[in-house]
Amino acid sequence: MAGLSKSYVGSALVVFRLRPRNDEMFFELLVSASGLLVDGARLLSGLCADGDAGRADMIARMHEVEHQADEISHALIRRVDTSFITPFDREDLHRLVSGLDDCMDHMDAAVDFIDVHALAQLPPRAVAQVEIIARMAELTAAVVSGLRDPARVRDYVVEVNRLENEADRGYRRLRAELLSGDPMDVLRMLQNLDIVQELEAACNAFERVAHTVEGISLKEP
Amino acid sequence: MAGLSKSYVGSALVVFRLRPRNDEMFFELLVSASGLLVDGARLLSGLCADGDAGRADMIARMHEVEHQADEISHALIRRVDTSFITPFDREDLHRLVSGLDDCMDHMDAAVDFIDVHALAQLPPRAVAQVEIIARMAELTAAVVSGLRDPARVRDYVVEVNRLENEADRGYRRLRAELLSGDPMDVLRMLQNLDIVQELEAACNAFERVAHTVEGISLKEP
Amino acid sequence: MAGLSKSYVGSALVVFRLRPRNDEMFFELLVSASGLLVDGARLLSGLCADGDAGRADMIARMHEVEHQADEISHALIRRVDTSFITPFDREDLHRLVSGLDDCMDHMDAAVDFIDVHALAQLPPRAVAQVEIIARMAELTAAVVSGLRDPARVRDYVVEVNRLENEADRGYRRLRAELLSGDPMDVLRMLQNLDIVQELEAACNAFERVAHTVEGISLKEP
Repeated sequence: MAGLSKSYVGSALVVFRLRPRNDEMFFELLVSASGLLVDGARLLSGLCADGDAGRADMIARMHEVEHQADEISHALIRRVDTSFITPFDREDLHRLVSGLDDCMDHMDAAVDFIDVHALAQLPPRAVAQVEIIARMAELTAAVVSGLRDPARVRDYVVEVNRLENEADRGYRRLRAELLSGDPMDVLRMLQNLDIVQELEAACNAFERVAHTVEGISLKEP
Repeated sequence: MAGLSKSYVGSALVVFRLRPRNDEMFFELLVSASGLLVDGARLLSGLCADGDAGRADMIARMHEVEHQADEISHALIRRVDTSFITPFDREDLHRLVSGLDDCMDHMDAAVDFIDVHALAQLPPRAVAQVEIIARMAELTAAVVSGLRDPARVRDYVVEVNRLENEADRGYRRLRAELLSGDPMDVLRMLQNLDIVQELEAACNAFERVAHTVEGISLKEP
Repeated sequence: MAGLSKSYVGSALVVFRLRPRNDEMFFELLVSASGLLVDGARLLSGLCADGDAGRADMIARMHEVEHQADEISHALIRRVDTSFITPFDREDLHRLVSGLDDCMDHMDAAVDFIDVHALAQLPPRAVAQVEIIARMAELTAAVVSGLRDPARVRDYVVEVNRLENEADRGYRRLRAELLSGDPMDVLRMLQNLDIVQELEAACNAFERVAHTVEGISLKEP
């Protein structure tokens, strides 16, 4: 009986000692993943600002950043699914990791479209979309290290929702501008729409991440 | 020992007394959210029917309805995530609330596109899409107050699936009509496609809600 | 006390005897659902290869296959939601069934667009998309019968991810080709884009299935 108690206490100690380390590693990966979103958003901004200078290099670096983010996502998913104890609800963590992945994928797709359509300059409203994305990436990176701070999470969610509403309205006004232009430039316009649509999808992905983070935060005891 | 039993019974009583009230409030919010979908669908139908009369007013009211729905969604999510006991599975409720939100968002986006593209009249097949949306909104509003009635849920799911299949086929035929028209009107056609696509997305969102409702209903003991 | 033990053992026996049969039926349905994806992908390939020969017949058969898949999905969902014990996590099974359904829906929508736009021939890069889809369908069908074999699942996930990245890049290059063509053919080009977009959505749906399968496999003890 004493032996049983002892081994029980023993396991509890192991759990007690392993859990913080496991969580730390988990948060480190999450911080890396969201940090890469900030890097990606900066490259996207760079491509809007600099025209041809360093263009090919920035495109190549974006694909590298996307690739790194992919590796981290896989590491996070493995960690979530093989850990006996996870810092938060497993479903929420899945949703968070795949949400961060979506943000990156849409930024990378926008850059790839800029590349394959050989677009030198985006319309001003598309540059505004990129600025919103850069802001959302920074807010996301700032919050993931403090998922257990409800006040911080609340401010973040409110701000991302506000930005996403602004992005949505801007997106539809941008489409209206492009679709009331010179009908002779219709192919160039459709090329612009490809990029604009990926930027809009990135904004939506950041908003979904915010809702996931909100859910995680509200469930905390 | 008796004290312990008593306090246990006491907590059970508290749970017994609080739970129905909590559920009632939850269902009231759900009924409001789905009622707003009916309001939104009516405004959408009004915009199709009335041409210019009252147009600006209907557009403004649609955005108000969307804003109210947003507030209710947030209240529902907070209630789901902070309640100790929820009437149904937490994941399902999340999916239901965000599903209802998607329906509204796509209706509101369609109206905003009608506004920014300054489209006076939709093609007949797009009006048919709006009619399907109005029917789906009514069916959804009727079912949310009776989520525990399996027969009612089954009829609703079958009918929404049928409507969504009809909408899908109509959507693709509408695209075929628009894309075989006069190539000189290509910009006007693309403006129409923007609206048509949001209407199709709204139909899909209503179908996802139906699947969520079906899942909730089947899990009930 | 002895009676209680006995009835407990009795229930355990019932569970022991019912569970394997329930799982068998579940896996049979899953194998059928993924087998239909292979059938659908073959019809899609046939439509690309054969031009007009047997075209109407292949289109009709695709819609039949989609309809059968729909029935199986509903049977699977009912089984998941009404079973006391399921072979895997309920949420994962929901995601798997609705993921397989999405794959089929996008293949069927692509075929319907080929029909309503009366397109006789797809561009070579779209044929490459169809080949990727056919490969993904085969890989998916092969893995669902062995969800509990981690090594097999790992190989499958790696290969589907690789194919999806290839499809993504091809998709954007195909759009670039179409959008730098003759602006006089803009409507024909937009018709092609409708199909190409559904094929891309099908590839994404297969990748989501792979991630769900990976999640299921990693959670297994």
